Amino acid sequence: MLGNFSYHNATKLYFGEDSLQYLKQELPKYGNNVVLIYGGGSIKKNGIYDQVIAILKESGKNIAEDAGVMPNPTADKLREGVKIAKAHHADLLLAVGGGSCCDYAKAVSVSVHCDEDPWDKYYARFEEPDCEIVPVGCILTMAGTGSEMNGGAVITNHDTKQKIGHVFGEEVMPKFSILNPRFTMSLPKRQMVAGIYDIFNHICEQYFSGEDDNVSDDLAEALMKSVIRNALVAVDDPENYEARSNIMWAATWALNTLISRGKTTDWMVHMLGQAAGAYTDATHGMTLSAVSLPYYRCIMPYGLPKFRKFAVDVWGVIPAGKTDQEIAREGLAALENWMKKIGVAMKLSELGATEEMIEGIADATLILDGGYKVLDRGEIVRILKESL
Amino acid sequence: MLGNFSYHNATKLYFGEDSLQYLKQELPKYGNNVVLIYGGGSIKKNGIYDQVIAILKESGKNIAEDAGVMPNPTADKLREGVKIAKAHHADLLLAVGGGSCCDYAKAVSVSVHCDEDPWDKYYARFEEPDCEIVPVGCILTMAGTGSEMNGGAVITNHDTKQKIGHVFGEEVMPKFSILNPRFTMSLPKRQMVAGIYDIFNHICEQYFSGEDDNVSDDLAEALMKSVIRNALVAVDDPENYEARSNIMWAATWALNTLISRGKTTDWMVHMLGQAAGAYTDATHGMTLSAVSLPYYRCIMPYGLPKFRKFAVDVWGVIPAGKTDQEIAREGLAALENWMKKIGVAMKLSELGATEEMIEGIADATLILDGGYKVLDRGEIVRILKESL
Repeated sequence: MLGNFSYHNATKLYFGEDSLQYLKQELPKYGNNVVLIYGGGSIKKNGIYDQVIAILKESGKNIAEDAGVMPNPTADKLREGVKIAKAHHADLLLAVGGGSCCDYAKAVSVSVHCDEDPWDKYYARFEEPDCEIVPVGCILTMAGTGSEMNGGAVITNHDTKQKIGHVFGEEVMPKFSILNPRFTMSLPKRQMVAGIYDIFNHICEQYFSGEDDNVSDDLAEALMKSVIRNALVAVDDPENYEARSNIMWAATWALNTLISRGKTTDWMVHMLGQAAGAYTDATHGMTLSAVSLPYYRCIMPYGLPKFRKFAVDVWGVIPAGKTDQEIAREGLAALENWMKKIGVAMKLSELGATEEMIEGIADATLILDGGYKVLDRGEIVRILKESL
Repeated sequence: MLGNFSYHNATKLYFGEDSLQYLKQELPKYGNNVVLIYGGGSIKKNGIYDQVIAILKESGKNIAEDAGVMPNPTADKLREGVKIAKAHHADLLLAVGGGSCCDYAKAVSVSVHCDEDPWDKYYARFEEPDCEIVPVGCILTMAGTGSEMNGGAVITNHDTKQKIGHVFGEEVMPKFSILNPRFTMSLPKRQMVAGIYDIFNHICEQYFSGEDDNVSDDLAEALMKSVIRNALVAVDDPENYEARSNIMWAATWALNTLISRGKTTDWMVHMLGQAAGAYTDATHGMTLSAVSLPYYRCIMPYGLPKFRKFAVDVWGVIPAGKTDQEIAREGLAALENWMKKIGVAMKLSELGATEEMIEGIADATLILDGGYKVLDRGEIVRILKESL
């Protein structure tokens, strides 16, 4: 059954090959001072930067640039971004890039008019914004995080070796996001695959919790099946628009709060993966893939009916003549097989993690209680060792 | 693949047994003059009226009542509602009831500050609103139409024997809607079942069109499966909260634009059913069920791959050793079997339609071109005769 909840997601989305043109329509809604946020400069090579700048100039905007947002945006970079936005009296933060840029823009948006240190306020003390929030718009160049239609903002602190996500409320969600599947085609295949696994895991994190029959799980299964099918196409043929457009749209709905309505959620793969990410600075999606199977094998006995359902409904495992455990195990084997086919990292050691880091990563892992089993320290260490 | 589209749906939803309490939170956002819109008075018997009035009074609102909204709201009633809202200088139209009340409230909302006749402007000439729109809030007592989170407003004109839906833009969508599955439990079973078929058919109308692989169809299948499963539970046990909550939430997502993004849609069952409804004043969902099977059998050969997919993915038809046509037919037989089990009307004659009405209903049927076959007059008459 569905418990009590509210749903409100007012982000306006423009999707498709022609979607960038709608930026012209959105810009007049905001003041003149725009901070253009982007990453390492790939948008300069693929021409997106020039297109965006042209539209901003045509709309008469004063542009300040905040470049160099890294794949795992740091607290130091966040402080720098706040200074840039303050100095420019920013009316709009326009992020052009993947989830890192969107996440970062949201973290800046709640900090521009705030005197406290943003890491301390939002990531150490987990406070909510109590100052004016600068509007954010996103132009996505990678599918994965769902950051384009949610309030999430993950920031990494290298000093404290922490990678923490703050999920802000609806007032921090992007006002608009532009999703052009063609823009995602210039990514290296490894980045595409990491994004795909990130999407898939977002769905799993919300699916593997609770025992009731609810529409949210049905929708989650639909998204999983679409991602599984289209990932196989996209890995063989990255220019396949059908596959890339489906992956991009599934990514948005995998993490915009829809499939978690009325139910509990897990999120322990993200807690383990983010802790590993803080130690290795590895690509987010790959840290998730590396810890997933040891984690799911550990919790499977505690959520057997859902793992059985996952096997049958998502992977088409034929249940006849098998025990529930056999069926569930076959489902996880199918997941493993798919992960290998699309080429995600299967081990943390591939990402630079070492035996010596295990205790530290375990220390940095936040333990949540929404899933089928609240992990103890011994289980976390065992999962991390099996992931190595 | 997904074509170009935009998505923006800012309706705030409160869902669950405790959801009515959030009305207190919403009311301060609007002015003091509230028009309370409701139907035949069942909300007075089941206590919802008293609860709502108490909250409105507690919030210091001036209340005008606009009661007697009929299951198929008429153009005459709409004109009356506009007068009431004008006289009360309405700041908020609060609809308490099913989709008819929500639809009606939206039609009033675009007409209060408009000098033209609302039927002529929005239903005869299909114009868009160019005047101030009064905000609408909904408290749902029936699951079915999806009106709580979309811009649709169907109005019936008995003079011209027309039942026409105008789908307004995002500015006409309810600002908030309150969805309490318990409120739907006081409905007679026949009304519940009509609502369930309305939901199911909304999904079909968007699903049975196009040939590409897209996430929208995956999500549509997930919603269909949830409705099929939960309808069987609810028909046996109408007090089952799990089933009623899933049905209510599926209804919202079946028609809030999500599952039509990036694809073409059909809507011919609604065109046929609404034409029949204008002649018989029958319950909306029952007119849809009565014409569905003859319509789908007529278009099946033109959209065979999708009807095959429907059979296998939604109804679990085993495809081995069968032709595509056999598989597709088995899917429609499964649909028919389910319809009979839940007890929808299988024939227009059950709803008061007669042989003599056929030509008139055919005349009143708008022909759309988004589905697998653009019907000609002969096909429409044949479908209606088979539905009789």
